[in-house]
Amino acid sequence: MAARGKLGLIAGGGALPLAVAARCEAEGRDLHLIRLAGFADPHLARYPGIEAGMAEIGRILSEMKSAGCEVVCLAGTVSRPDFKTLRPDLKGATLLPGIISAATRGDDALLRKILSIFEAEGFAVEGADDILGGDSLPTGALGRVHPSVEQLSDLRKALHVAEKSGELDIGQGAVVCDGLVLAVEAQEGTDAMLRRVAGLPADLRGAPGSPKGALGKAPKPIQDLRVDMPVMGVRTLELAAEAGLAGVGGQAGRLILIDRPAMIEAADRLGLFIWGEGV
Amino acid sequence: MAARGKLGLIAGGGALPLAVAARCEAEGRDLHLIRLAGFADPHLARYPGIEAGMAEIGRILSEMKSAGCEVVCLAGTVSRPDFKTLRPDLKGATLLPGIISAATRGDDALLRKILSIFEAEGFAVEGADDILGGDSLPTGALGRVHPSVEQLSDLRKALHVAEKSGELDIGQGAVVCDGLVLAVEAQEGTDAMLRRVAGLPADLRGAPGSPKGALGKAPKPIQDLRVDMPVMGVRTLELAAEAGLAGVGGQAGRLILIDRPAMIEAADRLGLFIWGEGV
Repeated sequence: MAARGKLGLIAGGGALPLAVAARCEAEGRDLHLIRLAGFADPHLARYPGIEAGMAEIGRILSEMKSAGCEVVCLAGTVSRPDFKTLRPDLKGATLLPGIISAATRGDDALLRKILSIFEAEGFAVEGADDILGGDSLPTGALGRVHPSVEQLSDLRKALHVAEKSGELDIGQGAVVCDGLVLAVEAQEGTDAMLRRVAGLPADLRGAPGSPKGALGKAPKPIQDLRVDMPVMGVRTLELAAEAGLAGVGGQAGRLILIDRPAMIEAADRLGLFIWGEGV
Repeated sequence: MAARGKLGLIAGGGALPLAVAARCEAEGRDLHLIRLAGFADPHLARYPGIEAGMAEIGRILSEMKSAGCEVVCLAGTVSRPDFKTLRPDLKGATLLPGIISAATRGDDALLRKILSIFEAEGFAVEGADDILGGDSLPTGALGRVHPSVEQLSDLRKALHVAEKSGELDIGQGAVVCDGLVLAVEAQEGTDAMLRRVAGLPADLRGAPGSPKGALGKAPKPIQDLRVDMPVMGVRTLELAAEAGLAGVGGQAGRLILIDRPAMIEAADRLGLFIWGEGV
């Protein structure tokens, strides 16, 4: 995808901002980083940019303008702040009441509110999924392992539960084994959910030698795909294997794979399937 | 409530079967225990009865008949078995294919199937909620602490999420804080969910000195209330306090309180509300 103006990447936690930055670099696209303090991966410090507190909204906007950014991309996870302990700058203090009000309506309302602030300042918004389009999940099996009928049935139920829990603004992921919902992801995140499944009684789940069940991740139907596409990486596969699962999957085009070749290699090595459900 | 025939209590894990047995004893009602091996609390061994494997269905039925039971009550939690490793008796082997088929459709289908087996053998089915009717949650605040408007809003959202996740046959409980769904309960159980909330980043939740948010439990809409009413006890309150929550609640009449006086004392001591939402 051709570069569409200098990108200001506001980076929260996790691997997604690293993937976005690496893709821009590979395409020769100009990039300026706003690393959110306490969240952004330290490896992002090698790109031009600054570290900023999440309530320093005035500073973030003026930094992006003076760096010549035309486009903004928000990517990565950010814990909801304790709004009482935030230290906003002047602009931040003006906007904070509206942000707090949006936050009480859920993660989705909060994200939309923050995007609207950047749009009002003249920035175009580009999603991590646009930038990483080529790394989204294709339809069908990726890699050598294909799901059995039972395993595909578990994955489809996990995706159904993930979608429904997304409608309730709970989260993006669920684990199903033999038709039973073992776990639903809320604020603890996918990795913690998979570790929890690994700790459930052995008769409820599979084991590395005799895997059963699947992890499914789906975007919230009400969620802005530009900001918060579900993501899996090699670590997701490793934890899924440790939890005794047979595979992972999502909706085709609606799941970002971080380092797809490495994921295929890991899935083949671990004996896991990766499945993209046609939508 | 008057005794309605000798009760055969098939006891899984947790405190609910203890509460049922204690209530029968207090009312002078005849009781015979089937303690499910690996699940039932060891303290139940002081009542007349046997320990049995969960697939020894023929033995359980003949024991109940020879003990003169007219009514059966299933109470307590049972992990789903690995059906491949069960050791059914002859009757169990005949019934197992139908049970396994029901199990693949979810916990609710599995429970209904098991109840139907006892009904077909001439037993009446009585629910733990019938027997413990007087210990169900009343409407409004129980104890000295009343929820604030924000806390009640969190509790109502938690109950809504619990109901919706129940519709999906996921589980009975959820925790909400400042409008955000912190956790949803599936197979790990309420205690493990509360411990997980206590381990979330401090800025997402309350703390024992400044509590926020609530635990809500609701029965699955499709669930047979005779078998699997949601339950809370003193331990639930202690773990809720450790997770920084402001209180707990359920739908009035649809939550069993194990040792209600002790729960009120604990809630007052810990500064937690217990709220029954009118339905």
